[in-house]
Amino acid sequence: MAIISLLSDFGQKDPYVAEMKAIILSINPQARIIDITHEIEKFSIRMGAYVLASAAPYFSPNTIHVAVVDPGVGTKRRPIIAETSRSLYVGPDNGLLMLAANKEKINNVYSIDNPRYMLSEVSKTFHGRDIFAPAAAYLTTGNKPSDFGVAIHDYVFPEFVKPHMKRGELVGEVLSIDGFGNIISNISAEDLERAGFHEGNSLVVALGSKTVNVLFCSAYGEVPVGAPLALIGGSNFLEAAVNQGSASAIFKAKIGDTFRVSEIESS
Amino acid sequence: MAIISLLSDFGQKDPYVAEMKAIILSINPQARIIDITHEIEKFSIRMGAYVLASAAPYFSPNTIHVAVVDPGVGTKRRPIIAETSRSLYVGPDNGLLMLAANKEKINNVYSIDNPRYMLSEVSKTFHGRDIFAPAAAYLTTGNKPSDFGVAIHDYVFPEFVKPHMKRGELVGEVLSIDGFGNIISNISAEDLERAGFHEGNSLVVALGSKTVNVLFCSAYGEVPVGAPLALIGGSNFLEAAVNQGSASAIFKAKIGDTFRVSEIESS
Amino acid sequence: MAIISLLSDFGQKDPYVAEMKAIILSINPQARIIDITHEIEKFSIRMGAYVLASAAPYFSPNTIHVAVVDPGVGTKRRPIIAETSRSLYVGPDNGLLMLAANKEKINNVYSIDNPRYMLSEVSKTFHGRDIFAPAAAYLTTGNKPSDFGVAIHDYVFPEFVKPHMKRGELVGEVLSIDGFGNIISNISAEDLERAGFHEGNSLVVALGSKTVNVLFCSAYGEVPVGAPLALIGGSNFLEAAVNQGSASAIFKAKIGDTFRVSEIESS
Repeated sequence: MAIISLLSDFGQKDPYVAEMKAIILSINPQARIIDITHEIEKFSIRMGAYVLASAAPYFSPNTIHVAVVDPGVGTKRRPIIAETSRSLYVGPDNGLLMLAANKEKINNVYSIDNPRYMLSEVSKTFHGRDIFAPAAAYLTTGNKPSDFGVAIHDYVFPEFVKPHMKRGELVGEVLSIDGFGNIISNISAEDLERAGFHEGNSLVVALGSKTVNVLFCSAYGEVPVGAPLALIGGSNFLEAAVNQGSASAIFKAKIGDTFRVSEIESS
Repeated sequence: MAIISLLSDFGQKDPYVAEMKAIILSINPQARIIDITHEIEKFSIRMGAYVLASAAPYFSPNTIHVAVVDPGVGTKRRPIIAETSRSLYVGPDNGLLMLAANKEKINNVYSIDNPRYMLSEVSKTFHGRDIFAPAAAYLTTGNKPSDFGVAIHDYVFPEFVKPHMKRGELVGEVLSIDGFGNIISNISAEDLERAGFHEGNSLVVALGSKTVNVLFCSAYGEVPVGAPLALIGGSNFLEAAVNQGSASAIFKAKIGDTFRVSEIESS
Repeated sequence: MAIISLLSDFGQKDPYVAEMKAIILSINPQARIIDITHEIEKFSIRMGAYVLASAAPYFSPNTIHVAVVDPGVGTKRRPIIAETSRSLYVGPDNGLLMLAANKEKINNVYSIDNPRYMLSEVSKTFHGRDIFAPAAAYLTTGNKPSDFGVAIHDYVFPEFVKPHMKRGELVGEVLSIDGFGNIISNISAEDLERAGFHEGNSLVVALGSKTVNVLFCSAYGEVPVGAPLALIGGSNFLEAAVNQGSASAIFKAKIGDTFRVSEIESS
């Protein structure tokens, strides 16, 4: 049974998500549709990319992920299908799909050009319904990615996947702030390993104008209730957190802010 | 496979929506349930009608749409099934179903009277679970609309589907404000066509005490970021919008407000 | 077809819920997943217990309910499966499952110990995905509750299920405040019956510092719009409500507050 996941910044009060699902089911009534989320911050490609990259590894191979955070809808940005060693990603060519796709092996990226697989009337405001949802549905009914258009190589590849070392600090940025107030960076467990920062160490986390010393924990409960900490979250990225509280309330960080981490110097 | 769509103002934090789904699946475990939304503004029949009318056309024929925005639950307002040329609509007799049903051809409207197709104990507070959900489920297991009760002709038909011309202005009202701050009117593409207003023209949009000159666009991106515009949204209704911003922040409009549009006079 | 219900305080903007669903479907692609809610107030075991107990009775027998409100994740609190005469409940051993399980007959409670039925790497932060979701999925593919671990008898049993009489007052507490502002107590229809309080009586509802005389109604519409009332809600618990308004705005109550009710003395 084909699984199609959906992610967007459409929210849940409008008819948009239901319209996408209705189109998918009208093309393939057997398709299994799973919402990742529709609560991505409006127009935040960065947060959308993070949530997609977090959830995608838990889905079965051959899942088709449709993601729509699309400030450029109606302009020349292309609709694309990214084919990896494990999954298919359908959405706008604005970097949204690439953090997830890059964690797998990207085999090909195709432009979606073929009007045969779009709604008969394509609006300039809602490609989620008119292009991406039908493309995903047709991918579950026997069509191959190459049926939709030509392979492209100049697709947008996001900057925000590459934290770097600078004067002993790992320098990344904030990808998302979750519902618990955890501030999630683009610094992965592997980046920390390479930098020689290990669980149990004390770290200096610098976010905007705030700099806080925290323990690099493996569970929230390792520090007292209300105390800040750093840990590798469920998505394998470093996050600033507070045990049963909100790191967001301490750091006042927002998506896109610089997130720097270093070890406390032994004197 | 039978599809049942659900729309309500119940929100998502309470058990109400899950109870409706549980009842449907206990009657027909094969039913396919798709949420349209449960975030309709509390008691806003107008917004519920708009969202239902927007989403319904994208579903397959024979979909059963259950909609519950029901300030009169427990009073004498009737539960009804509206049968159109394309779909079945199940919900309260308060106008909620009629904007959607009227876009198709209404063949018959039935009162739901037969206790055989209700929960054994019908509460006065939650007909969504006790009457509407079971009715929808039984409609997927072989029952016909006429099994549920008598045909009625005095069902409530809403006023808000009929914008009119007055001194060169198209006068409608606000049906909804979406998650992007777009202000959606009840003025359809056909109403504008009839009035002679076309994409590319400059329009005067008057909402409450604010009057703003805008371009009648076919895509948000046709005006600079932050600039207001008017366009036909995905649901075929005229909306006031701001490119990558919020029209709601400019106009301070609310659902039910008058929405007037005219062409800029050439001097 | 096996039904798995999900309840949590994870919210809908993060990838957490989708990851649980992806794991379930990777183990049993045929499983039917129904969300109860993911909008439980963060860390509110009381509200989670209430919503689960409200929704569970409407599901078919043999439904598997997964509930995760889990402030103690990563500490020594055990993961458990509670087996009742009607359903299976999977979640943390913190009382969350017991209000629902206790309404049925609790047959056995098992600790989940067997790593064979967990993800290969179990995080200390997200047992919903790593332990509870896989346990639920394996319960749909032939495993019995006893396959997961040993029967335990010292599981946490919550206090908040037991309102009591004190000087002519029924004394309970606030379990939840729903999206309409209705304040829901733990006082059941049976508790009121036993105390001799009947629909049609006038009641004194005391919540925090506010004491209000209200009619004990059977429908919201039995009092004028804007007037307060008491009634047995859809979940069989007494609630303070306002017809088409918000009781929460009058009483300023919060979850866990004392909720006292008595009859007005005839003078």
